[in-house]
Amino acid sequence: MDVLEFRPQPDQYAWTFGGVAPTHRITPGTVLKLWTEDAFSGRLQRTTDKPSQVLNMAEVNPQTGPFFVEGAEPGDTLALHIVDLTPARDWAASSTIPFFGALTGTDRTALLNDPLPEQTWIYELDRARGIVRFEAQRSSLSLELPIAPMLGTVGVAPPGREVRSSLVPDTFGGNMDTPEMRAGTTCFLGVNVEGALFSVGDGHYRQGEGESCGTAVEGAMDVTLIVELVKGHAPAWPRLEHDEDYVVVGSARPLEDAWRASQVGMIAWLGELYGLDRLDAYQLLTQISRSPLANVCDTNYSAVTKIEKSLLPAADAFGGMHRHLREQATTLT
Amino acid sequence: MDVLEFRPQPDQYAWTFGGVAPTHRITPGTVLKLWTEDAFSGRLQRTTDKPSQVLNMAEVNPQTGPFFVEGAEPGDTLALHIVDLTPARDWAASSTIPFFGALTGTDRTALLNDPLPEQTWIYELDRARGIVRFEAQRSSLSLELPIAPMLGTVGVAPPGREVRSSLVPDTFGGNMDTPEMRAGTTCFLGVNVEGALFSVGDGHYRQGEGESCGTAVEGAMDVTLIVELVKGHAPAWPRLEHDEDYVVVGSARPLEDAWRASQVGMIAWLGELYGLDRLDAYQLLTQISRSPLANVCDTNYSAVTKIEKSLLPAADAFGGMHRHLREQATTLT
Amino acid sequence: MDVLEFRPQPDQYAWTFGGVAPTHRITPGTVLKLWTEDAFSGRLQRTTDKPSQVLNMAEVNPQTGPFFVEGAEPGDTLALHIVDLTPARDWAASSTIPFFGALTGTDRTALLNDPLPEQTWIYELDRARGIVRFEAQRSSLSLELPIAPMLGTVGVAPPGREVRSSLVPDTFGGNMDTPEMRAGTTCFLGVNVEGALFSVGDGHYRQGEGESCGTAVEGAMDVTLIVELVKGHAPAWPRLEHDEDYVVVGSARPLEDAWRASQVGMIAWLGELYGLDRLDAYQLLTQISRSPLANVCDTNYSAVTKIEKSLLPAADAFGGMHRHLREQATTLT
Amino acid sequence: MDVLEFRPQPDQYAWTFGGVAPTHRITPGTVLKLWTEDAFSGRLQRTTDKPSQVLNMAEVNPQTGPFFVEGAEPGDTLALHIVDLTPARDWAASSTIPFFGALTGTDRTALLNDPLPEQTWIYELDRARGIVRFEAQRSSLSLELPIAPMLGTVGVAPPGREVRSSLVPDTFGGNMDTPEMRAGTTCFLGVNVEGALFSVGDGHYRQGEGESCGTAVEGAMDVTLIVELVKGHAPAWPRLEHDEDYVVVGSARPLEDAWRASQVGMIAWLGELYGLDRLDAYQLLTQISRSPLANVCDTNYSAVTKIEKSLLPAADAFGGMHRHLREQATTLT
Repeated sequence: MDVLEFRPQPDQYAWTFGGVAPTHRITPGTVLKLWTEDAFSGRLQRTTDKPSQVLNMAEVNPQTGPFFVEGAEPGDTLALHIVDLTPARDWAASSTIPFFGALTGTDRTALLNDPLPEQTWIYELDRARGIVRFEAQRSSLSLELPIAPMLGTVGVAPPGREVRSSLVPDTFGGNMDTPEMRAGTTCFLGVNVEGALFSVGDGHYRQGEGESCGTAVEGAMDVTLIVELVKGHAPAWPRLEHDEDYVVVGSARPLEDAWRASQVGMIAWLGELYGLDRLDAYQLLTQISRSPLANVCDTNYSAVTKIEKSLLPAADAFGGMHRHLREQATTLT
Repeated sequence: MDVLEFRPQPDQYAWTFGGVAPTHRITPGTVLKLWTEDAFSGRLQRTTDKPSQVLNMAEVNPQTGPFFVEGAEPGDTLALHIVDLTPARDWAASSTIPFFGALTGTDRTALLNDPLPEQTWIYELDRARGIVRFEAQRSSLSLELPIAPMLGTVGVAPPGREVRSSLVPDTFGGNMDTPEMRAGTTCFLGVNVEGALFSVGDGHYRQGEGESCGTAVEGAMDVTLIVELVKGHAPAWPRLEHDEDYVVVGSARPLEDAWRASQVGMIAWLGELYGLDRLDAYQLLTQISRSPLANVCDTNYSAVTKIEKSLLPAADAFGGMHRHLREQATTLT
Repeated sequence: MDVLEFRPQPDQYAWTFGGVAPTHRITPGTVLKLWTEDAFSGRLQRTTDKPSQVLNMAEVNPQTGPFFVEGAEPGDTLALHIVDLTPARDWAASSTIPFFGALTGTDRTALLNDPLPEQTWIYELDRARGIVRFEAQRSSLSLELPIAPMLGTVGVAPPGREVRSSLVPDTFGGNMDTPEMRAGTTCFLGVNVEGALFSVGDGHYRQGEGESCGTAVEGAMDVTLIVELVKGHAPAWPRLEHDEDYVVVGSARPLEDAWRASQVGMIAWLGELYGLDRLDAYQLLTQISRSPLANVCDTNYSAVTKIEKSLLPAADAFGGMHRHLREQATTLT
Repeated sequence: MDVLEFRPQPDQYAWTFGGVAPTHRITPGTVLKLWTEDAFSGRLQRTTDKPSQVLNMAEVNPQTGPFFVEGAEPGDTLALHIVDLTPARDWAASSTIPFFGALTGTDRTALLNDPLPEQTWIYELDRARGIVRFEAQRSSLSLELPIAPMLGTVGVAPPGREVRSSLVPDTFGGNMDTPEMRAGTTCFLGVNVEGALFSVGDGHYRQGEGESCGTAVEGAMDVTLIVELVKGHAPAWPRLEHDEDYVVVGSARPLEDAWRASQVGMIAWLGELYGLDRLDAYQLLTQISRSPLANVCDTNYSAVTKIEKSLLPAADAFGGMHRHLREQATTLT
């Protein structure tokens, strides 16, 4: 397998999906060893740092990429298999940002309340033990939390000539912020433009479901991916596959619409995998789907529909691509 | 412990929270061995049964109760510990109902589309193996699914002189339809009227998160509960405790508001348990909360915020009531 | 015509729709001359009054009624024609109430922000000139605003055995808070229980569309109504008729669902009046409906679909009831 | 005044806000005499035309422009005064489009219902009498409706490096679809990129509030505009001024958020115009705002807050720009 290593310099970050020239052209089957900067572009470093003072809001969620995948055409399906996610720093940061987050008025949920106070939390990583430490800043509690590295942002260029901020999740993936995007996951995204032009970023050392305050345990990440291409079969919404689960991510507002998109997406997938009639799939889904939220803070909210494979007959989604990539991944280590 | 057994006759069912005279008066500490009819009032029995023909929509979600708890006053906290849930029949039913469910136009999401077809699925229970069988009706798939008994509906009389249908979830609990309401769970509900007047019903042999089509694997249930009372400390929204988790359920529309209510409820709980400042709790929650949906089909949608106790310091919620009830439960078997 | 005059004493107020014994039994055709207390139960009287100190939140939106209408049965249509609305005091009040209103976090849109400050505005009425005076309290502006008396709350007992707070708008009418409910309006409500059991209250000397801060120019009102009954023909959602317009009010959350309900209700009405196919009515509505919001602060939000009669062929809704009542009204003065 | 006439050829249409080179560079004060193609790109011409067969969904809502305004910098305010809107054809079209519109499942409100039937209505224009004729297609009704020409789409390039489809309304204006955008209106838009890069299109011969079915009476339009620039003072959301009203348009989902944005935008404007404290403005708004919906079908919904100037003291918004442009307009005819 071809292996490409890339650690972008700050002037090489992408801030959008679409609208940016690729940093590299790669062929399907390539292994990428990437470094991603954190969502704050590394500017939030101390508990005394206030986002309104240290951040440049035009430069958040820096993306590594985009990558042009040879042969990828609109209607195809890009498969990104996450082989490994390893924290690239020994600390990570999280913060409340004025008028951003799920439990505050925002620019859209426009209210007259004052913003919540800005507060920054720094999480020290104990790499050996695989934990980060939460230290309360305004009261007294210190906790060890296991790390659970994930990528907040994985996306391709959007359809319809659009260029979207790297803060946006939508049909093209993007800033979905779901803990399901972890090592061992294969992410299937419909290709909208020639070359797919995907990028990744926004590593989280861990995150709850919903990303309530708007920022997870944000940290730079070493990312190992294998890139593959399935001709045709573009799904309407991002699909993820683990060894244990099928996952569909929908992104919209209000939150029920994000979830509905993921549900209808899963019904379509069940139909493809098992020849299930739409109503039968609706019924089956009703009894077996798990519905963990992803984010309720971004431009679109993201919700997940997830089904344990152990409840279903064996099947080969996308021609068995996930299994193939899992096998490829084992040869890398 | 006092033990009360009660299997209501059809003319004893309650159809509302509030507005109904209690079937029994009980003292805190009482063990209830109850039988609950299924949400269809037992009328949906064959795959050829159509809800619009066999159901009486004024008589769905029959409740067993209400029970008047001696000494319960507004502002107190009712604790209901579910000792056991055992399917009371060897089959269960699920169905699509015209203009009801998450993935169809409804009376509220009022659209011009025709209703989805009515279709009924019957699930045979294999009691020994603990599975129900899904049989596709319009295509070809047969699956064994493990049972996971839960109660869809647990609630007290509402505040503000209101009487609500047993189809409604809200601050008073009610038709929350969360799989978290299972054997081993203690449910804490704020008391709104003298005697609390709680009732239970709507057993599900299993249900996915979101109850997509509007009806779970609906079946009659044998229910064993222990009833306790905590003076004062009424939570704003229902709280659940398992051995493994703290859970808060919020119910509202749109879905983000249901979830926000559960999140703010959990932040309040973390504050009570650990003296955590509100912003510190917001931050911690962001990194550790799990957010499985409950229902996206009822009058209000219900969403869950859930935290694994293993991530938190030991604490005694409501004076250690859950642990006490778990111990009591062991004496029953 | 029978004329009934009624000024309830405070212990005669109703606080709910349903669940209350009628104050009077009347026959269709009766003229009611009623007095309604303001939404604050008259307790907010000075700009220094703070709602959290002077209000009893269990006693807001007092209703005059309910009235039992002889012969009214479920499925019938109650017609309430508002002959006259005259301010019953020379002042009115409005206020911000903590965690209530459209532009603040609330118990449902549960956020972590502090509540907005409580502030009370008192409006002096110049009866001769038909104006109230707005006096800014925290800055400097004084304005004369024309009065436009309306009733915020007109409703019947709900269906399904429910009892709802007088703060709730829904299919049964209730706290719709629409400026369309003014002198000259006939309000058509589906009857859910024998006798209909309607009540009125919550007079506003004027109100913008949306009732942003949660409270209008709230004042006691002298109300003259004529009560009539149409056998059958119960509409799904409240319908209003003026000389100039047809109006349907939908109430739900999120706001698009409130509006969708009003739209589908109007499409049904156009079908009844003109034999229009559903898609043709959808098309026509698209080009001619006016969509002024009613409230975005109550338990359900209320939205209006309104069509000018001058754009449509002449028709006799509900057998010409509105014209009949207008004629009756002229005999009263 | 410089006058520029421009009728774009099909290969000159813009399909996005941002991401397109300007067709012209103009100076503030320029008069534009433009022609805009209809939203269907002229492809829907007969009642037998089905959108799914004749439309190219990648080529809808063609824009005339963009125009680069000399001297316009981020933070400035573009003022576009609509002098005249005259139908450029003697017919217009409207249609239901599968999975598009307010009263049907869509790609976001993802449901399992079949799409509504595709149906096309053609409106003949009687130019002398200023009416279009509605002809029911599936039932029997023919109506004359007064024309009320408006522009559905007026926008500048978005902030944050984004490029958005011409179907999107947002802070940059765009596809707001409000009947308030008519001859006599001055539209104020914050400038996000050098030159502002504004474009216009999507003429409607008339439209109801909400644009229920997703398409208005869509027709090619002759548009006369005057372009001006205010240095600084960029509003957060589009502001419109008529001789009679101040108007703010918010765009978001759910609908309450669109409206909240317009309300908070109006509170800001009242603060600027009259030095009103935020709470005083909230109170005043509550009693005087009109809230007609714009669209409930586009990517974001758009809602309007509107205040009659006659209720307020005289003021000079944006330095009296609207009055200045009205005077300029009189010199053109």
